[in-house]
Amino acid sequence: MKAIQYQTIGELPVVADIPLPEPGAGQVRLRVTAAGLCHSDWFVMSLPAEAYTYGLPLTLGHEGAGIVDKVGEGVTEVAVGDDVAVYGPWGCGHCSECSQGRENYCPFAADLGIYPPGLGAPGAMAEYMIVNDVRHLIPLKGLDPVQTVSLTDAGLTPYHSIKSTLAKLPAGSTAVVIGTGGLGHVAIQILRAITGATVIALDVSEEKLTHAREVGAHTTLLSNSDAPAAIRELTGGIGADAVFDFVGATPTLDIARRSVRIDGAIESVGIGGGTLATGFGSTPFGVSVRAPYWGSRSELMEVLDLARSGHLHVTVEEFPIDRAPEAYAKLHDGQVLGRAVVVP
Amino acid sequence: MKAIQYQTIGELPVVADIPLPEPGAGQVRLRVTAAGLCHSDWFVMSLPAEAYTYGLPLTLGHEGAGIVDKVGEGVTEVAVGDDVAVYGPWGCGHCSECSQGRENYCPFAADLGIYPPGLGAPGAMAEYMIVNDVRHLIPLKGLDPVQTVSLTDAGLTPYHSIKSTLAKLPAGSTAVVIGTGGLGHVAIQILRAITGATVIALDVSEEKLTHAREVGAHTTLLSNSDAPAAIRELTGGIGADAVFDFVGATPTLDIARRSVRIDGAIESVGIGGGTLATGFGSTPFGVSVRAPYWGSRSELMEVLDLARSGHLHVTVEEFPIDRAPEAYAKLHDGQVLGRAVVVP
Amino acid sequence: MKAIQYQTIGELPVVADIPLPEPGAGQVRLRVTAAGLCHSDWFVMSLPAEAYTYGLPLTLGHEGAGIVDKVGEGVTEVAVGDDVAVYGPWGCGHCSECSQGRENYCPFAADLGIYPPGLGAPGAMAEYMIVNDVRHLIPLKGLDPVQTVSLTDAGLTPYHSIKSTLAKLPAGSTAVVIGTGGLGHVAIQILRAITGATVIALDVSEEKLTHAREVGAHTTLLSNSDAPAAIRELTGGIGADAVFDFVGATPTLDIARRSVRIDGAIESVGIGGGTLATGFGSTPFGVSVRAPYWGSRSELMEVLDLARSGHLHVTVEEFPIDRAPEAYAKLHDGQVLGRAVVVP
Amino acid sequence: MKAIQYQTIGELPVVADIPLPEPGAGQVRLRVTAAGLCHSDWFVMSLPAEAYTYGLPLTLGHEGAGIVDKVGEGVTEVAVGDDVAVYGPWGCGHCSECSQGRENYCPFAADLGIYPPGLGAPGAMAEYMIVNDVRHLIPLKGLDPVQTVSLTDAGLTPYHSIKSTLAKLPAGSTAVVIGTGGLGHVAIQILRAITGATVIALDVSEEKLTHAREVGAHTTLLSNSDAPAAIRELTGGIGADAVFDFVGATPTLDIARRSVRIDGAIESVGIGGGTLATGFGSTPFGVSVRAPYWGSRSELMEVLDLARSGHLHVTVEEFPIDRAPEAYAKLHDGQVLGRAVVVP
Repeated sequence: MKAIQYQTIGELPVVADIPLPEPGAGQVRLRVTAAGLCHSDWFVMSLPAEAYTYGLPLTLGHEGAGIVDKVGEGVTEVAVGDDVAVYGPWGCGHCSECSQGRENYCPFAADLGIYPPGLGAPGAMAEYMIVNDVRHLIPLKGLDPVQTVSLTDAGLTPYHSIKSTLAKLPAGSTAVVIGTGGLGHVAIQILRAITGATVIALDVSEEKLTHAREVGAHTTLLSNSDAPAAIRELTGGIGADAVFDFVGATPTLDIARRSVRIDGAIESVGIGGGTLATGFGSTPFGVSVRAPYWGSRSELMEVLDLARSGHLHVTVEEFPIDRAPEAYAKLHDGQVLGRAVVVP
Repeated sequence: MKAIQYQTIGELPVVADIPLPEPGAGQVRLRVTAAGLCHSDWFVMSLPAEAYTYGLPLTLGHEGAGIVDKVGEGVTEVAVGDDVAVYGPWGCGHCSECSQGRENYCPFAADLGIYPPGLGAPGAMAEYMIVNDVRHLIPLKGLDPVQTVSLTDAGLTPYHSIKSTLAKLPAGSTAVVIGTGGLGHVAIQILRAITGATVIALDVSEEKLTHAREVGAHTTLLSNSDAPAAIRELTGGIGADAVFDFVGATPTLDIARRSVRIDGAIESVGIGGGTLATGFGSTPFGVSVRAPYWGSRSELMEVLDLARSGHLHVTVEEFPIDRAPEAYAKLHDGQVLGRAVVVP
Repeated sequence: MKAIQYQTIGELPVVADIPLPEPGAGQVRLRVTAAGLCHSDWFVMSLPAEAYTYGLPLTLGHEGAGIVDKVGEGVTEVAVGDDVAVYGPWGCGHCSECSQGRENYCPFAADLGIYPPGLGAPGAMAEYMIVNDVRHLIPLKGLDPVQTVSLTDAGLTPYHSIKSTLAKLPAGSTAVVIGTGGLGHVAIQILRAITGATVIALDVSEEKLTHAREVGAHTTLLSNSDAPAAIRELTGGIGADAVFDFVGATPTLDIARRSVRIDGAIESVGIGGGTLATGFGSTPFGVSVRAPYWGSRSELMEVLDLARSGHLHVTVEEFPIDRAPEAYAKLHDGQVLGRAVVVP
Repeated sequence: MKAIQYQTIGELPVVADIPLPEPGAGQVRLRVTAAGLCHSDWFVMSLPAEAYTYGLPLTLGHEGAGIVDKVGEGVTEVAVGDDVAVYGPWGCGHCSECSQGRENYCPFAADLGIYPPGLGAPGAMAEYMIVNDVRHLIPLKGLDPVQTVSLTDAGLTPYHSIKSTLAKLPAGSTAVVIGTGGLGHVAIQILRAITGATVIALDVSEEKLTHAREVGAHTTLLSNSDAPAAIRELTGGIGADAVFDFVGATPTLDIARRSVRIDGAIESVGIGGGTLATGFGSTPFGVSVRAPYWGSRSELMEVLDLARSGHLHVTVEEFPIDRAPEAYAKLHDGQVLGRAVVVP
């Protein structure tokens, strides 16, 4: 079968021809219907050899959807032909976190050699993929896989982050979204759907800000050093109750610090490599600063429910599998509108 | 193998000789090391034929511990010889509740024919038992199975109830425990271990109240119509922040109603068949009334952790399996001190 | 000044001429700009003499807004001319509940002789009213008093109830609203504004259901014994995550019981005099049943913020003060569309 | 009257003779019965002139207790002779935070010129003090003022921090306390009183670790670069669920970072001037880092309740008011055991 593989450190991924994998006991093989590209794939492919820990060759794709093609021994909960999305942050399944479906925070997965598909295990960017446990399959129940697949990361990650700070976002509160691309433009929609917060979106071009308003931002601002003062003015001098930074670079985290209210929350979701010096005198009193990671199983169900009820729309650009390397190049150069999806 | 079975409506359970069961794919067979008796077994065995839905014969025992004896196909997470406790409220494993380990509230289990062991599925009161999924096994990690097995229900049920109301029980609050037997005497210990609440225990005899004080109750009262006034006086006229009723009869629920504060919580845990007329003018403003059921997977892990750190001690009376019918008779007549446990 | 007073048990309120009250130390006198009528006024006026505890004559009106007219000694936080709404559930101000602004659950207010305006203290249905403490004034900040005044009860009460159950209402959940009148039609709007829940509204006429859809209900059903089955079907057999009963009669509470999911919540907000028999075997496992009361100070601020951001619209019928008795008669006969407001 | 005042930047505080203050409308004058010294006083007195914003002369003392001596106009809620503690973090009283008693996070206080006593307003280290509003007085109800006064900061601050992270501290969890002095030794007691967590305490000398065990720490470790490995080993490789750093220097925050589990919490409570670089790749996934500040009104009530029920004991060294400068010198040199308290 065809698979998009990262084979050589520092080079573009290639279309490889590899054997069709067989599902072992408890496993499921999917015929992939959609696989999403993500900036974090580039984060991985940008690592120097000494920092790269994902194995080579690596079949990419941590956002996946497919049709159940074959089940391993002992699998009774799904049947061939079922339409599913893949929950990606695979954990051990048995610790306290995993027992609550918070496999994204499993403390044992890495030591046990359990990795997400596309981030250590063979990923979704292939004609077929193996899912290691039936609990990682979420029924699509009528959702279109191509329109939906990105939600397994680009929807789940902001949803988890927003839900973690929900107590800070009652009616009348203000949420700031920095970076309105893949994750950010979904975050705006989620904030509008599940909170009564006013949403202020920041990005670096008027074109992106126009898009942000189209998906629901109440107010938009250019992301620069003037933004904090503007946010304070918009909030009666108080500052934003929560700031979601989908860039995660030091300058955007600095905007976050200067925009957040006392007792507010900063979520550093982007993997831009920045950090925020947190502590007494550096961040306002009571502000939590946190880099969340992906989300839980039940949260993914909730994200798909939001899509089903019409609250979430991902702007998708489709590519056939043979053009996946080209799609990665476009993603790298910032030329993808919304989210790129490979349709094998 | 020997199994304690309820075979005939209205009669005592008997010691039966039945075939050794084989674990199917994904299942695990345990050699049972301990099985607890519970008042709810009597609730089941007291039902008239037309209300009885658990199947006959029914191998009893929803509190179980054992040693992994044989694993079905596809089971890799446990190994023969592992010492485990059984999580009893089996759910579908795939819905939102189950994905959070809250299988006790699975809305689909009954429709799918999934029942807890001893309450539909063959239970722990036998030399061997089948557990339907490895996720229902919690490692004992050194805990003694006989001393611990009751915690899978008599510990988990009050822990879940107390944890559900934790926001009502800050430092300085007051918790009332009605009924200090199997579940109640563990509830007192849990309240002392995980809250700063003052614990007032109610029961019908001075002997039981002495026991309640021994396990940690700050104050004890006879459970009668004078108790609410005494509770109000002990709380400066305010009433108790939370009342846990492990009897669940109409008179005890009435004590709960008259003892609870505005904005407090009543947990009706016991299955005494009573109800509380809840609504404006009947219960104080803002009081939630709720009949919880068992607990979640992670809560069971937490209960076992509490036992491991020495916070929980269950008074246990042991019986060999041949004497299980006698143990049930003693339980029925209120002649068991603490909790009866069958050791096959 | 003119005041609408309930003077004689069993008779209609009248327009009385009473002395202009003077604010004492720490108090504030408002020139009333709007006062809302509420079904609970009729609850009070329907009580027989032996159950009536509010004092006679009683100036009605527990929903009030006004302009600061005169301040008592020591009041510095507001100034003459300020436009404010009145927070009605006055508490002692010093207990744990009051210190958190949850004065609606103050356990000491009644014993201290502290009553809400219009429910013991002289109310808002007069040309002027006294507010006992400046903390009970919430700035309107540009909101129209006539359009807004009802939110101090008809908005705050459902908001508090919904916020109390928010953890049950994630994306993909279902909320049922029974009774779509004064409080219910605001509840629908609040649910849409601050949750991702699907809203099912129940009422007794197609006209009311049309109105419910206009204010945001996704689905509407006639409120009868067929409704629970329809709700179960709409929720994939699971039932509603939360049911808000703004009628509170025994038949509607029975619909709530039969419609709610395991582990769900029933909020009995209406004062229809009904109760729900709560307990093991009567209500589904884990369902909390609760009669909330009004709301907190910060919740009222949040409700007004929701109005300010355009999420809440109350259908208002205005009456001059001289026609208030007539308005009460119309309210009694169910002939008020939305909410009746007296404008002195 | 005598007052301990900071009069000259860079010099020790002195005993000054100043006029007896008079309470204005709504204010209360206390005859001080106890006033606590705090390391944050030294933080203030160590500031260079250009960074110092508290005004000169500054009467010190933000931990205060006293007897009501005279009340201003309009004050009816307390009476002369009442024994009270002072809630220190004074806010505006009217914003959302203040309405919930979270005046420690009031966004408006500083702009309004409202400062805590001893940190801008005249403090408790005098024979008499003015409290600006009766809501800032909490009845002692029999507690000894000298033994209790430190709890208004050294108890309230850790209590607020611990309560903010309570969801991370279920039964079976592990809490780390770095720094077992004034606040830390109270934190250990609070953790034992209101959680089932295992408490690991870190400090720099065996003498302090002995004290930490005496007040309830389960395990103690020297606070150095070996501590994180030891903490991981004690927690089965997972790390601590919450780390409370009462030093707040960069080295201790680094210990916190290396000791905390994925999805855990770091509370940087101490004002040691350090910061923690927070973000993806720097702190473990999902870890919140936060510098809390003091606590809320209801939390102080809860702290005093804990003291009343015997859970909290502060080691106190008493000084007469004339020896306060000497006490500050000893505090500076680390020669105070527990907490220094001035008794006028």
